[in-house]
Amino acid sequence: MASREVGVALLGVGTVGGAVARTIAERGDVIEARTGVRLVVRRAMARSRERVIQVGLPPEIATTELDDVLGDDRAEIVVEAMGGEEPAASYLLRSLQAGKHVVTANKEALAKHFAELAAAAHAAGRALLFEASVGGGIPLMASLRQILAVNRVSRIRGIVNGTTNYILTQMAEQGTAYAEALQEAQRLGYAEPDPTADVEGYDAAYKLAILASLAAGRHIRPERVDRTGITGVTPEQVGEARSRGGAIKLIASAELDGEEWRLRVAPEFVPGDDLLAHVRLNFNAVEITGDRVGPVVLYGQGAGPQPTASAIVSDIVDAVRFGVALAPHVAPE
Amino acid sequence: MASREVGVALLGVGTVGGAVARTIAERGDVIEARTGVRLVVRRAMARSRERVIQVGLPPEIATTELDDVLGDDRAEIVVEAMGGEEPAASYLLRSLQAGKHVVTANKEALAKHFAELAAAAHAAGRALLFEASVGGGIPLMASLRQILAVNRVSRIRGIVNGTTNYILTQMAEQGTAYAEALQEAQRLGYAEPDPTADVEGYDAAYKLAILASLAAGRHIRPERVDRTGITGVTPEQVGEARSRGGAIKLIASAELDGEEWRLRVAPEFVPGDDLLAHVRLNFNAVEITGDRVGPVVLYGQGAGPQPTASAIVSDIVDAVRFGVALAPHVAPE
Repeated sequence: MASREVGVALLGVGTVGGAVARTIAERGDVIEARTGVRLVVRRAMARSRERVIQVGLPPEIATTELDDVLGDDRAEIVVEAMGGEEPAASYLLRSLQAGKHVVTANKEALAKHFAELAAAAHAAGRALLFEASVGGGIPLMASLRQILAVNRVSRIRGIVNGTTNYILTQMAEQGTAYAEALQEAQRLGYAEPDPTADVEGYDAAYKLAILASLAAGRHIRPERVDRTGITGVTPEQVGEARSRGGAIKLIASAELDGEEWRLRVAPEFVPGDDLLAHVRLNFNAVEITGDRVGPVVLYGQGAGPQPTASAIVSDIVDAVRFGVALAPHVAPE
Repeated sequence: MASREVGVALLGVGTVGGAVARTIAERGDVIEARTGVRLVVRRAMARSRERVIQVGLPPEIATTELDDVLGDDRAEIVVEAMGGEEPAASYLLRSLQAGKHVVTANKEALAKHFAELAAAAHAAGRALLFEASVGGGIPLMASLRQILAVNRVSRIRGIVNGTTNYILTQMAEQGTAYAEALQEAQRLGYAEPDPTADVEGYDAAYKLAILASLAAGRHIRPERVDRTGITGVTPEQVGEARSRGGAIKLIASAELDGEEWRLRVAPEFVPGDDLLAHVRLNFNAVEITGDRVGPVVLYGQGAGPQPTASAIVSDIVDAVRFGVALAPHVAPE
């Protein structure tokens, strides 16, 4: 098989961006042998050029300007690993408009601008891939794409936030209170110093909005999620659930009720005969119910630089090989 | 999006082949809207033409001869749903050699002739897809393909036979003996009148050989599986496992030990903190461990005409759209 060299541009070289660069360096040969695609990091954008050099990338590819990335014809693919709504969402849009394939792990930008980004990808004839935005390295988007090709999906539910699942697991198994379990999660790096996005369910709501938009085929905004966090969960509730053979889990669920999708993130009792009750620590699991395949559950590590970079690099390869056929179908609201 | 009409030929119109024809008829419009591919069944081969007509297909597409299928240029894709090693394996090979994309659910033919079929697909520049061969409608191959693009996979283990899992679940939850649970499974249609292939682990061994061959990148034959069935499992063993919070499961496992893959199908004790212990009834689940993504588990219905047809039709669409890029990498032994 003749190989083709493909240039990649990184927007953001933090934990995830750095792991992507390392994965490409370490697995480039294997990827080339399997797919005929030779990945080369051509550009890396960060707030300062020093940050790029610090992650071991060559100084000559460092830039602080998006225009340098968009104007570089050798960079066919833009990988956005900056996070947050802006400027990431604008950069994603401009990258597609400039004719780049786009791979992103950014749940917030995607959840808030999904239809606009999907339309830009189709208009430009480019791929828009986002496997890492929900469920880290779990092949969730690849699976959902396959199921949606044939099935009507009327329900998606799952555990999509590892931080809160770690806290709830510790409360259940160690008998600790919420505050104590949160501190432990922060100490291990599973929770941020400001844990609001996780413990109040915003992170889960973004991810749920992405999954529901794909199932619905149109943009469902994260503001439509009825959201309750875990800060009010007591050791008594958790203990009682455990004594009944089940567990309290932060469940994100989207369900088609007539013509209307109902989205909810809230702590719920999950009985012991439900697989989700047995998802422990910082793991994630999502159940997709298709009318023909029935319920399918996907489980794995929902975060972490290695699983996330694995999903991103796999997306890069698919974007090169399959292009706009892998742009999502998400109509405006 | 401009649509393209794609002709499909069915080899075999039994339970699975019939379900594929129905799925194409019922979901054709949705598939076309999502993918731009209009599927049309152009040929259907069976032992008699009457069988084709019985499943509601038009008489003029019925044939009993493979040559009619191979010679029909309007049939771009061959779907093999005959089962068994021969003549299926030869038909798969001849279809690829005739320039058809091939989709199959045939675990036995694939497990025994994987390298030969993969080589024929690459030589002809055609897709060879087999999502339904392991785990029914579970998006296992799509997930494995994504994980293998970047990860080294050194372990795959799971519950890949629904019949034996149903029997073991009944033994555990109803306290019945093996023979009684088998009868119940036969009554419900989960077990064949001759249950040997399931209960002696042959079916699981074929599926394991397919998964291991993909992970290894070379053909690992089913004869290499160290195989023990469930006929010797006693109610006492099952009860004792349950009292320890776990379960006895027929576990298929492939593990890389140095340079050597070790394959085994056998009843094993699975502890309660392992997700596989909670896979009940006729469901399947497979754990794939990649060095970057960690353990990923996929769960769902491992059999049944609807889930199987869903996987096959999704494969058909992917074959049309992505072609030889979706031929597996399985070198000779």
